[in-house]
Amino acid sequence: MELALVRVLYRRGICPETAVKEVEIACSQVTTEEVYEEEDRIRHDIRALVNCIRAKVSENTKPYVHMMATSNDIIDPANAARYKDVVQKVLVPSLVQLEGVIIDITLREADTVQIGRTHGQHAVPITFGFALAGYVSRIGGSIKALKTLAAELPGKFSGAVGAYNASSLFFEDPEMFETEVLAELGLTPAECSTQVIPPEAMTRLLCEIAILSGILANLADDMRNLQRTEIGEVGEEFEAAQVGSSTMPQKRNPINFENAKSCWKIIVPRIVTVLMDQISEHQRDMTNGASIRTHPEIVAYAVHTAKRLTRTMQKLKVDHENLQKNLEMTNGGIIAEPMQLIPSALGHPDAHEKVRLLTLQAQREKRPLEEVIIADSEMQTYLEKMTPYQRQILSNPALYIGIADKKAKTVAERWKKKLEL
Amino acid sequence: MELALVRVLYRRGICPETAVKEVEIACSQVTTEEVYEEEDRIRHDIRALVNCIRAKVSENTKPYVHMMATSNDIIDPANAARYKDVVQKVLVPSLVQLEGVIIDITLREADTVQIGRTHGQHAVPITFGFALAGYVSRIGGSIKALKTLAAELPGKFSGAVGAYNASSLFFEDPEMFETEVLAELGLTPAECSTQVIPPEAMTRLLCEIAILSGILANLADDMRNLQRTEIGEVGEEFEAAQVGSSTMPQKRNPINFENAKSCWKIIVPRIVTVLMDQISEHQRDMTNGASIRTHPEIVAYAVHTAKRLTRTMQKLKVDHENLQKNLEMTNGGIIAEPMQLIPSALGHPDAHEKVRLLTLQAQREKRPLEEVIIADSEMQTYLEKMTPYQRQILSNPALYIGIADKKAKTVAERWKKKLEL
Amino acid sequence: MELALVRVLYRRGICPETAVKEVEIACSQVTTEEVYEEEDRIRHDIRALVNCIRAKVSENTKPYVHMMATSNDIIDPANAARYKDVVQKVLVPSLVQLEGVIIDITLREADTVQIGRTHGQHAVPITFGFALAGYVSRIGGSIKALKTLAAELPGKFSGAVGAYNASSLFFEDPEMFETEVLAELGLTPAECSTQVIPPEAMTRLLCEIAILSGILANLADDMRNLQRTEIGEVGEEFEAAQVGSSTMPQKRNPINFENAKSCWKIIVPRIVTVLMDQISEHQRDMTNGASIRTHPEIVAYAVHTAKRLTRTMQKLKVDHENLQKNLEMTNGGIIAEPMQLIPSALGHPDAHEKVRLLTLQAQREKRPLEEVIIADSEMQTYLEKMTPYQRQILSNPALYIGIADKKAKTVAERWKKKLEL
Amino acid sequence: MELALVRVLYRRGICPETAVKEVEIACSQVTTEEVYEEEDRIRHDIRALVNCIRAKVSENTKPYVHMMATSNDIIDPANAARYKDVVQKVLVPSLVQLEGVIIDITLREADTVQIGRTHGQHAVPITFGFALAGYVSRIGGSIKALKTLAAELPGKFSGAVGAYNASSLFFEDPEMFETEVLAELGLTPAECSTQVIPPEAMTRLLCEIAILSGILANLADDMRNLQRTEIGEVGEEFEAAQVGSSTMPQKRNPINFENAKSCWKIIVPRIVTVLMDQISEHQRDMTNGASIRTHPEIVAYAVHTAKRLTRTMQKLKVDHENLQKNLEMTNGGIIAEPMQLIPSALGHPDAHEKVRLLTLQAQREKRPLEEVIIADSEMQTYLEKMTPYQRQILSNPALYIGIADKKAKTVAERWKKKLEL
Repeated sequence: MELALVRVLYRRGICPETAVKEVEIACSQVTTEEVYEEEDRIRHDIRALVNCIRAKVSENTKPYVHMMATSNDIIDPANAARYKDVVQKVLVPSLVQLEGVIIDITLREADTVQIGRTHGQHAVPITFGFALAGYVSRIGGSIKALKTLAAELPGKFSGAVGAYNASSLFFEDPEMFETEVLAELGLTPAECSTQVIPPEAMTRLLCEIAILSGILANLADDMRNLQRTEIGEVGEEFEAAQVGSSTMPQKRNPINFENAKSCWKIIVPRIVTVLMDQISEHQRDMTNGASIRTHPEIVAYAVHTAKRLTRTMQKLKVDHENLQKNLEMTNGGIIAEPMQLIPSALGHPDAHEKVRLLTLQAQREKRPLEEVIIADSEMQTYLEKMTPYQRQILSNPALYIGIADKKAKTVAERWKKKLEL
Repeated sequence: MELALVRVLYRRGICPETAVKEVEIACSQVTTEEVYEEEDRIRHDIRALVNCIRAKVSENTKPYVHMMATSNDIIDPANAARYKDVVQKVLVPSLVQLEGVIIDITLREADTVQIGRTHGQHAVPITFGFALAGYVSRIGGSIKALKTLAAELPGKFSGAVGAYNASSLFFEDPEMFETEVLAELGLTPAECSTQVIPPEAMTRLLCEIAILSGILANLADDMRNLQRTEIGEVGEEFEAAQVGSSTMPQKRNPINFENAKSCWKIIVPRIVTVLMDQISEHQRDMTNGASIRTHPEIVAYAVHTAKRLTRTMQKLKVDHENLQKNLEMTNGGIIAEPMQLIPSALGHPDAHEKVRLLTLQAQREKRPLEEVIIADSEMQTYLEKMTPYQRQILSNPALYIGIADKKAKTVAERWKKKLEL
Repeated sequence: MELALVRVLYRRGICPETAVKEVEIACSQVTTEEVYEEEDRIRHDIRALVNCIRAKVSENTKPYVHMMATSNDIIDPANAARYKDVVQKVLVPSLVQLEGVIIDITLREADTVQIGRTHGQHAVPITFGFALAGYVSRIGGSIKALKTLAAELPGKFSGAVGAYNASSLFFEDPEMFETEVLAELGLTPAECSTQVIPPEAMTRLLCEIAILSGILANLADDMRNLQRTEIGEVGEEFEAAQVGSSTMPQKRNPINFENAKSCWKIIVPRIVTVLMDQISEHQRDMTNGASIRTHPEIVAYAVHTAKRLTRTMQKLKVDHENLQKNLEMTNGGIIAEPMQLIPSALGHPDAHEKVRLLTLQAQREKRPLEEVIIADSEMQTYLEKMTPYQRQILSNPALYIGIADKKAKTVAERWKKKLEL
Repeated sequence: MELALVRVLYRRGICPETAVKEVEIACSQVTTEEVYEEEDRIRHDIRALVNCIRAKVSENTKPYVHMMATSNDIIDPANAARYKDVVQKVLVPSLVQLEGVIIDITLREADTVQIGRTHGQHAVPITFGFALAGYVSRIGGSIKALKTLAAELPGKFSGAVGAYNASSLFFEDPEMFETEVLAELGLTPAECSTQVIPPEAMTRLLCEIAILSGILANLADDMRNLQRTEIGEVGEEFEAAQVGSSTMPQKRNPINFENAKSCWKIIVPRIVTVLMDQISEHQRDMTNGASIRTHPEIVAYAVHTAKRLTRTMQKLKVDHENLQKNLEMTNGGIIAEPMQLIPSALGHPDAHEKVRLLTLQAQREKRPLEEVIIADSEMQTYLEKMTPYQRQILSNPALYIGIADKKAKTVAERWKKKLEL
C-alpha cells in the first residue's frame, strides 16, 4: 500500500519517478525485525513501518512516504487484499480439492444402498452416494458464496476520519485518487468509510467461513458416527504403524473426523468476537486492536480442516458388508412408510395408524414386518391391488430408495462441471 | 403447505377437486387449540395438525391429506415462506423507514461541522451529516443483503430422507412435483435436501440480521456518546411528563439508544445457537427441536430495534451550539494534520515529528496551536509558501472538512433513489 | 422491597406505623396492569410502580414510599431475591429429583456389564450403573455449586451512585440501614455497589446453570446414542398412542433426549449475553436494559430440561440382551489392554506393540483375539505365568470391569445420603 | 506424571529403585523435538512421549514406563497441575499487583470529588477513589474465586474408561493407588472419572477468568471514557517519543485501555468453546482434541491484560482541574435529588415531580438550579426547615457525596490487608 500510494503520487505528478524507485527498493528491504524495534521505541506500528521505509530513501523522497495517509489507509486495504488472497488462493482451492474427493466417492457409491437415518433411527433407504451428494451441494454453495464475498471486500484511502481531509488539500477529486491507489491492489473503495473500512463485508466473509466449517463438521460427525463399532459402515484408514490408544492396542479412533468437529468448536464462537469488533465508536475506536489480529486464525483453522478432511476422505473405507447388514437390521421395519402410503392412495382412510399398530405387533412378536402385513386380513385387500414393483418393496426394502441413485449422480456431475473438476 | 399439496395432487389427477375444496375449508377452520390438544394426546406436532384437518374432511378426502409428506415437507417450506415474508414485509420496510429518517438528518446536517473523533479523542473535523452518511451506506447495504438472502430461502418436498422415496411411488418426476408444490408458496426447491432443507440459506439470513443489528448498535452507541453531559451534541427528545430517574428529577437518559445496544447483546450470541443448529446428524437429528423455535425471536428483536430507533432518530435534537463549542475545545490542536502535511508536500523531511513537538509545546503552555506554529521560525518558511486557503485553515479548523459535506449529500441522495424514498 | 423499606423506616422512627400498614395493603393491591398503564404515560418502570403505590395510600404516607431509593435499590435486591428463590425452590429440587432417579438406575444396574466406549469405539468393559455414576457425581457437584452461588447473591440499598448520598442525609449509619432493609428479604449487602449490584455473583450463578445444562446435555447425548437402532442398549418409553413420525409408522425417536441437547444450545450462547451485561460504564449504563430481562429464560430452560429428563429417565428401558450382544461384538478385541498389560508387568519389553499386531491379525483373519493370542508362541510364555483370574479374562471379557460395579454403588450411595434422598 | 507413576510403582514394590532413577533422568532429557518426530511416525502424542522415554531407559525399566496408564491418566493430571500452577503463580500474582496499584490510587483520591454518572449523564457526586473502590472489591472477589477454583482442580488415574480396569489387575485398592500417584503433583482424584477428568472444575475456572476479564474491561472502559477529549478527567501517560497517530501529531489515544477491552472480546466468546468441550460422548470422544489446546490462550490473554493494565494504571494521570470543571457543568442540576428528598422527608407529597419541573425551568432559562429553587415560593417553606448542612448542599454540590470518601478508604484498606499488600 505504501508503494501503491507513491506510484499514484508519481502518476499524478506530485513526486518524481525516483521516489517510486526508492520506495520500491526500500519496501523490498524493510524487515519485520526492524519495524518491531522501531515500534518498541515509538509505540505505533504503522508510523514505525513508515519510519523504517523513510530511513532507506533519500531526503527528497522522504516527504512522499505515507503522504496524506492515516495508518488505516494502509492497514485496512492491505488486510482486504490479503484476506481476498488467502480465500481465493488457499481456502477455495482446498475446498475445491475436498469437493473433488467427495464427488468421486459420491459417483462411486451412487448405487450403494444404505439405510437412511433420522433421529439416529433407521428410517427408509437411500444410497451412500446420495448421503454424500448433500455435502457436495452444501460445500459447493459455500465455495460460491466465499468467492463472491472475497471479491467484494472493499478498500479505502479516505484519511483520518474518512472525509478525505488530507487528500482534499492536494486534489480536486480525492475519491478518484483513492480509486487509483486501491486499483494497484485490485480493490475498489468502500462507498463511505471512516478511519476504517466499514466492517460488514469482512464480517460476512468470516460468517460464511463459520458456516462452511459447520458443513464440514456435519460431514465429519456423520462419518464418525458411521464408524462406531456397532455401525461400521465406513472407516478412516489406519497406517501400519499407527497407534490408536496408548493402552488399548486394538483401537482405531476416528481422530481426523473428531478434529474437524473440534476446529468447528474453535471457529464458531469466534464469530461473536468478529461481530463484537463490528462496532467502533464514532470515526473509530480501537477496542478491536488485539481481537482483530486473531481473525486470520479463523481462516487458518478452516484451511486446516479442509486439507485434513481431504486426506481423510481420500482414504475412506466403505464397508459394503456392514451397509447390507444394517439395512436388514430392523427386519423390514423400514418399509412401514410405503406400506401405509400405498393403501392410503388406494383409499384406506387411516393407513398410518393401521401400519403403526402392525409394526408394534411385529416388534412384540419379533417377526418380519412383511410377514405380519401379509397375515393381516385388512391389508390383504390392498396388497392385491399393488403393482408388482410395490409388492417387491415388501420383500426387498433396498428397492425403496426413491431417486437417491440418480440424484447423487446429477448433483455430483453438476458440481464437477461448475468447479471445472 | 397441506393445502398446496392437495392442490397439486388434484392438478396431477391424483385426487378429485372436492378434496381441494374440503381441505381449503378445513385449513381455514382448524384452530391452534385443537392441534395442541391432539398433540398432547399423540406427542407429535405435525401428525396432530394432519389429524385435525382429516377430522374436518370426508372419508374420501382423508387419504390425500399429507399424502407422501414427511413432517418437514410441511414445516420447512412453511418456515422458509414465513421468514421470507417477515423479512420482506416487516423487517425491510422498518429498515427502509429508519433509513429515510437518517437520510433526512444527513441532508439537513450535511454542512454542520462536527469534530471527527478517533479513540474518543478529537481528530480532524467532519460534518454531522457525514457521520450519519456512513450509517446510511451501511444500513443500505444490509437492506440489500437481507432482500437477496430472503429471496433465496429454498423449500423442499422430498420426503422422509430427501430421496423422494414416497413421491417416487406415484410420480415419474418427483422433483417436478416438488417444484410445483413449492411454487404454491412462491418457493423453489433446495438442490439437495435430507429430511430437512439444508440450513445454510437460513443461517446466512440470520447472520445478516446479526450484522444489521451491529450497525444499529453502532449508530446507537455513537448517539448515546454524543448525548453525554460533557459532549451534548445530540439528545433524545423527552416528553413533558417523562421521568428520567426515580430519584434524580433532572436526568435525561438515552434509554432508547441503550435499548438498541441491549437488543444487539441479545441477538449476537444467539447466532451461535443458529450455527450450532446447522449440524444435524445423517438425514437429520432433532437436537435443534427447541432451539430452532427461538430463532424467530432474533427477527423480532431486530424489527423492534429498527422501529424504536426510527422513533428516536425522528425526534433527535442536534445542539449546534455544543457542536461548535466542542470543535474549539482543543485550541486548534485539530489542525496538526494539515500543518504537517503541507510542509511535507513542500519538502519538509520530517514534518510529522516537528508538529508533534509543537502540539506538546502548545499543550504545555496552554496556547493555541496556531500561535505556537506562527511563532516557530522553522514553520515560518512553510507558512509563507501556503495557499490562502491553506493559511485560512490555521485560523479556522472548520474549513478542514475535506469533502465531508459533499459526500454526505451524495451518499444520502444515492440511497434515497435506490430505496425509492 | 418497597414494603421492606417502609418497615425499616418505621423501626428507625422516620415514619409512623400507619405508613407500614398502608403500604402493605397498597402493595398487595397493586396490579401489573395499572403499573404498565402508568409506565406508558411516564416511560419509567419503577417510578410507575411507586406512583401506583402512592395512589393507594394517604397523603401522610406518600413521602415515605420509595424514600431515598433509586430504582435499582428496588429492582436489584428484588431480582437477587427471586433468582435465589427460583434456584432454591424450583431448580435445585428439580435436579435433586432427577438425581434421585439416576441414582436408582445406577444402583439397579451397578452390575450390568456394558462395553465402555471411547471415540465411539469399543474400549474395555464397565457397567451401565458405572456409566451413570459419573453423572450422579457431576450433577451432584453442580447442585452443590448452585446452592452456594444462590445463597451468595448480594443486595444493595446504596442510592443513585452507590455512595449512600440520599440515605446519608437521614442516617449516621447508612450501611447499617441498608443491612436492615435487605435483611427483610433475606439478603446481605454487596461490599461496594454503584447504582447497581456488582454483577459477578449473578454471572457466576448463570455460568453454573450453563455448566449444569452441559452435564444434562452430555447425559442426553449418551442416552440418545445408546438408543441408535444399531446399538439399542436403552430406549425412551413410548406411549401406546404415541406417533414417532408423520410418515414412518415404525419410528421411535429419542425426542426427549434430543430436547435436552437443544435446550443446551439455547442456554450456552446466552452466557455471552450475560458476560456482555457484566460491563456497565461508570456508575451504570443501561445497555443491559433489555438483555438482562432475558436472563430468567436461562433458568426456565434449565428447569424444563431437568423436569423433562426426570420423566424420561424414570421410564428408561434398559435392553440387557443388546448390552450383552454389543459386548461380544469385537470378538474379544476389547481384552487387548489386559493382554498387553500383564505381559508388560511380567517383563515383556514392548507388549503394547506386540498385542497391537495380534489385534490386526485377528481382524484380518476374522478370528477371536483369544484364539490368536493362545496360538502365538511368544505370548505362550506369559499366558503360563498368568493368575487364574487373569487367564479367565481372556475367555470372558465381562470380568474385566475393574471396580466399576463397586464404584457405581459407592458414588450413588454417597449422593443419596448427601442429598437426603 | 510418567515419573510420578514410576515413583509410586516403586513405593508399592512393583518396580526396582533403578527404574525410578532411569525414568527421572530420561524425563529430564527428553526433548519436544524428538517427541514430535515420533508422533509424526505413529500419530499418537502420548505414546510418542512414552516411546521416547522408553528409548532412554534399560530393557528392565521399559515395562514400568506408562504402566497401567491410558493417555489421559498422564495428560489430564498434567493439565490440572499446570493450570493450577499458572493461576497460582502467574495470574493471581499479576492481579494482586494490579489490585495494589488500584488500591494506592483509591486511597490517594479517596477525597477527590467527581461527578457520579449513570447512563453517561451526570447524576450525583462521588469521589474518584470511590469509583475505583468498586473495582478493588470486584477484582478482589475474583482473585478469591480464582484461588479457590484453581485449588479444586482434580486429577485422575483411573485408566481407559475410568473404572480402574488396568490398575485393578495389580492392586486391591486402585483408588488409593490413584491418590498416591496424584499426590506427587499435589492433586486429589475426581470423585468419578471416565477416560478423562470430569470437565466441570476446569470449566468453572475458565468461566471465572472470563468474569475477571469483564471486570478489567469495565475498568478500562471507564478510564477510556474519562479520557475523552471532552471529559479529560484521567489520561494514560505518554512517553516523550510516543506517537499517537501516523497522521495527526496531536493525538494521545487510550490504546492500553482499548487493548484491555479488545482482549475481553477475545476471551468471552471462547467460553462457548469451553462449554462446548464440556460434552464428551460416553467414556469420552475427542471432538475437543484441537479446541482444548486453545484454552490456555484464555489464561494468557488474561495475564497479558492484567500486566498491561497494571503498567497503565501505575502511570494514570488524574486531572483535578477537569474533575472540578465537570462537577460544575450542570449548573447545580446534580442537586435535584437532595432537593426533592429533603422536602419529601419534611412532608411534601410529590417533591420529585415538583423538582423535576424546576430542573426543566432552570434548563429552559439557563439559570443555576439553586437560584430557581430559592426563587420558588413553594420550595421556600422547605428551605427554611432544612439543617445548615442541607442548605449548604444547595450552594455546594461537592458536599453531597454521601459516604463515598469513607467507603473508598474502608474497602481499599480491607483488601490491602486481605491480600497482604
